[in-house]
Amino acid sequence: MKTEYLIDQIHQKKSFLCIGLDTDLDKIPKHLLKFEDPVFEFNKAIIEATHDLCVSFKPNTAFYEADGIKGWLSLKRTIEYLNENHPEIFTIADAKRGDIGNTAAKYAKAFFEEMHFDSITVAPYMGKDSVEPFLSYKNKHTILLALTSNDGAYDFQVKNDQGKKLYRRVIETARTWDHSDNLMFVIGATKAKFIQEVRKLAPNNFLLVPGVGAQGGSLQEVCEFGLNKDVGLLINASRSIIYASSKSDFAERAREEAQKMQKEMEEILHN
Amino acid sequence: MKTEYLIDQIHQKKSFLCIGLDTDLDKIPKHLLKFEDPVFEFNKAIIEATHDLCVSFKPNTAFYEADGIKGWLSLKRTIEYLNENHPEIFTIADAKRGDIGNTAAKYAKAFFEEMHFDSITVAPYMGKDSVEPFLSYKNKHTILLALTSNDGAYDFQVKNDQGKKLYRRVIETARTWDHSDNLMFVIGATKAKFIQEVRKLAPNNFLLVPGVGAQGGSLQEVCEFGLNKDVGLLINASRSIIYASSKSDFAERAREEAQKMQKEMEEILHN
Repeated sequence: MKTEYLIDQIHQKKSFLCIGLDTDLDKIPKHLLKFEDPVFEFNKAIIEATHDLCVSFKPNTAFYEADGIKGWLSLKRTIEYLNENHPEIFTIADAKRGDIGNTAAKYAKAFFEEMHFDSITVAPYMGKDSVEPFLSYKNKHTILLALTSNDGAYDFQVKNDQGKKLYRRVIETARTWDHSDNLMFVIGATKAKFIQEVRKLAPNNFLLVPGVGAQGGSLQEVCEFGLNKDVGLLINASRSIIYASSKSDFAERAREEAQKMQKEMEEILHN
Repeated sequence: MKTEYLIDQIHQKKSFLCIGLDTDLDKIPKHLLKFEDPVFEFNKAIIEATHDLCVSFKPNTAFYEADGIKGWLSLKRTIEYLNENHPEIFTIADAKRGDIGNTAAKYAKAFFEEMHFDSITVAPYMGKDSVEPFLSYKNKHTILLALTSNDGAYDFQVKNDQGKKLYRRVIETARTWDHSDNLMFVIGATKAKFIQEVRKLAPNNFLLVPGVGAQGGSLQEVCEFGLNKDVGLLINASRSIIYASSKSDFAERAREEAQKMQKEMEEILHN
């Protein structure tokens, strides 16, 4: 998907919401367990209830891999369903992969060619040759971990690195790599005060911002510092939307939660 | 697998060789393509030809994911085959995963419970809560990326971090985490001169050392600096062994290459 198309979708839907499909067999409503693929049935219901309120869906691969082959099948069915029925949606494989060059190329093949995601999250620790194979795909996006939403982010990401914090070095360095116009960055909403700095380093890149909702980040604060001329933000919420109810009304309740966020975003975009 | 058992195996086999099963459908002998699962047939032949010469097999997940569901099935068959037929082998899922706490727990479930690997490689970028869910499994091992064998390692890993290079901070910090006795570290053979430093920081941890063979690292140099009282090294070779021949003699040629390395290791252990 071209970035311009994503921006257009954001303006049309008045939303920059990304819904995280962290679908966990232990957490979905019990009545779905009678289906052959309960995870896919859950995802389909969430997608149908919310796709007009968000611009992106983001399955996190961990939740699928935990169920083995069955889980991988659920993931495959989900991305195929999205691509067939909602091609306007920007799809993110939240896979956080990262390996040496020839191996990274295999991961890129897995997520861009085998499963046709629009984008993938990638870890920066192994440097340039571990990221460039993803960047080289035209109209695909590589979302590099910079400053994550978890407590562990303080262990290495915000430590000084020759006078520069590591996440700053990651952003600055990555922007020098080939095809860096295909780069987005992950910046946790729980670290909103850092977003102002990030915007100086990466004025034009989209930021994928997890941590609003269950993890406690503030949408208002993120937008105050993070919006750019193209909006430039994808705000992710997972658990707060998809597990709004554990009963048969889960899809309607998910829609209500998504709508609250979309309304808040519409107001922010209006102001 | 208990660390003591692995050490015992190293002494019995006079080998600390790990063979990387980076099995690529485009590179395996053409005559295997007639099988239903050519990747598994290839792996089985390599395992049978070399299991007495090595202590570990390490499939890299990227090569399997690139083939979608089929690939995931080949990986599952391979680990099941190893666990059933060669339980003495230390199995490594070279997956380089890393995500926030509750998600990391799902990856741990995928590789330790769903596929029964003895260990997994994990990326440190997201810090403590992204690694501890792996460490908490008894008799399972978490192999943390520290200093990788690729060129990209120079982008962030060896930069100063408050006067400390990042890979040093990773090793020092990780050793303070819960259950850190289950930690091993990845240190590339192409960075042998750093191994002396690493041994000071982590005198007792096993080091998984890729980069000997196709990537050009020296076994002698790695051993000079890396051996400890328990041997403490797993030297990985992938392409130089498994693709020694692309013809029907691939398994015998793989054995020859593995034997060369085992003999060199036997001599090193003897001296």
